[in-house]
Amino acid sequence: MRYENRQEMKTRRRNLALTIAYDGTNYNGFQWQSPPRIAVQNILEDRLTKIFGDKIELAASGRTDAGVHAFGQVVNFFTDGNIPVDKIPLAAKSVLPPDIIVREAREVDKNFSALHSAKSKIYLYRIYLGAVANPFVNRFAWHIPYPLDVEAMGAALNLLVGTHDFSSFKASGGAPNMNPVRTIYVADLFNENFFGADILTIKIHASGFLYHMARNILALVVAVGRNRITLDEFQKIFDARDRSLVPATAPAHGLYLQEVFY
Amino acid sequence: MRYENRQEMKTRRRNLALTIAYDGTNYNGFQWQSPPRIAVQNILEDRLTKIFGDKIELAASGRTDAGVHAFGQVVNFFTDGNIPVDKIPLAAKSVLPPDIIVREAREVDKNFSALHSAKSKIYLYRIYLGAVANPFVNRFAWHIPYPLDVEAMGAALNLLVGTHDFSSFKASGGAPNMNPVRTIYVADLFNENFFGADILTIKIHASGFLYHMARNILALVVAVGRNRITLDEFQKIFDARDRSLVPATAPAHGLYLQEVFY
Repeated sequence: MRYENRQEMKTRRRNLALTIAYDGTNYNGFQWQSPPRIAVQNILEDRLTKIFGDKIELAASGRTDAGVHAFGQVVNFFTDGNIPVDKIPLAAKSVLPPDIIVREAREVDKNFSALHSAKSKIYLYRIYLGAVANPFVNRFAWHIPYPLDVEAMGAALNLLVGTHDFSSFKASGGAPNMNPVRTIYVADLFNENFFGADILTIKIHASGFLYHMARNILALVVAVGRNRITLDEFQKIFDARDRSLVPATAPAHGLYLQEVFY
Repeated sequence: MRYENRQEMKTRRRNLALTIAYDGTNYNGFQWQSPPRIAVQNILEDRLTKIFGDKIELAASGRTDAGVHAFGQVVNFFTDGNIPVDKIPLAAKSVLPPDIIVREAREVDKNFSALHSAKSKIYLYRIYLGAVANPFVNRFAWHIPYPLDVEAMGAALNLLVGTHDFSSFKASGGAPNMNPVRTIYVADLFNENFFGADILTIKIHASGFLYHMARNILALVVAVGRNRITLDEFQKIFDARDRSLVPATAPAHGLYLQEVFY
């Protein structure tokens, strides 16, 4: 049991929250794994234990899968270590590999939990539209070298906004008893630029995400963009609450946990 | 002798030129190395030999150091293999790792040499200006989290334009008898964007580059940007033809061989 001491840890002096960015390419996802598998959490706990001096066990806003990136993952932990919060990012940089960054640290109320206090999250999904592959972008976006009907994709995303049953977008074989109702506040897309390469970025802000929900939504939205299904068919598949109607999950390496709201 | 058969190879039916992009992070530079060291050229020759069926030996426009990237490296080789040129990028993609891409292939005159026919080259150098490190940009730009006087940097670059002796910017310990005169046609800077991160990009178009010249120029231009030396001092160091006056070579991972002109 890794977390048996969680209650005991709350007697430590400070509860610290960190905002973490990582390139997920080289990790077995965020959540702690038994070695020799290495997840981002393994590295973070090991290195934070080194700089704080007491054994650090994190709670995180949620898991991210192998290959998924984060710009704004949030974690918290209890510590008696006395590094001032404004010195933590640099102290962490000195012990972390360059693909994991502590962007910000702050002291939070003892009742704050990065997992349980989360109110909503933004995920981004990046698609690289170039005709020819690009070695700089290949770990950071799904390469689709075909024309996409971006207007239709935007219309499909718009159909998701609101409070709905998202069963059609849950993971196949996922926990069957999980409540599949979530609220999507924003679902839109915009253009980005990556050293001159054209990127189409999809943004989804929701009260929460079922496991694989963001990547399954993407798969179906791209099916609309490639004119494989119509908007009517998109709506019908959404309404059917049947995962088997959605194409294969979009690749992990286009997905970013961008921001968590508390 | 790897190239003993070069003349003999010219009897092969076609001379093909490829434009190559690569993320240099995981390679010991471009030029072929004895295993277990692996350079981009090792991978390219091995994989092209597989798809063309005759043993491929490349000539390239020039070397790039370990960690340096390329968007427009050019190579050529002779082959009797009969893949149509427009099919080569995809055929290469099927055998190359994702950090090496064949962007374009074309048949060229038997006298064309990617090395000897090159007339000029553009190198880019990218600096990431964010206050906080960013795990997505760290292999693709030099992170300078301090204010830079961009206007002074532009003025310093402007002093380099023209035909000059670039001895101050040669590699320390480099070949002493190399003619140090080169012509810089363009030396300027512009802003780029990398998923919302601010990037300052320096562009240098020159008739050729001494070994380490681009990175040594960058080191001195950044010294101007950080107000460590004045423009007058920059000019004096340039005129002195003395490598020992220039700060340590700028990091490899910000440099890109962007384009080669023939």
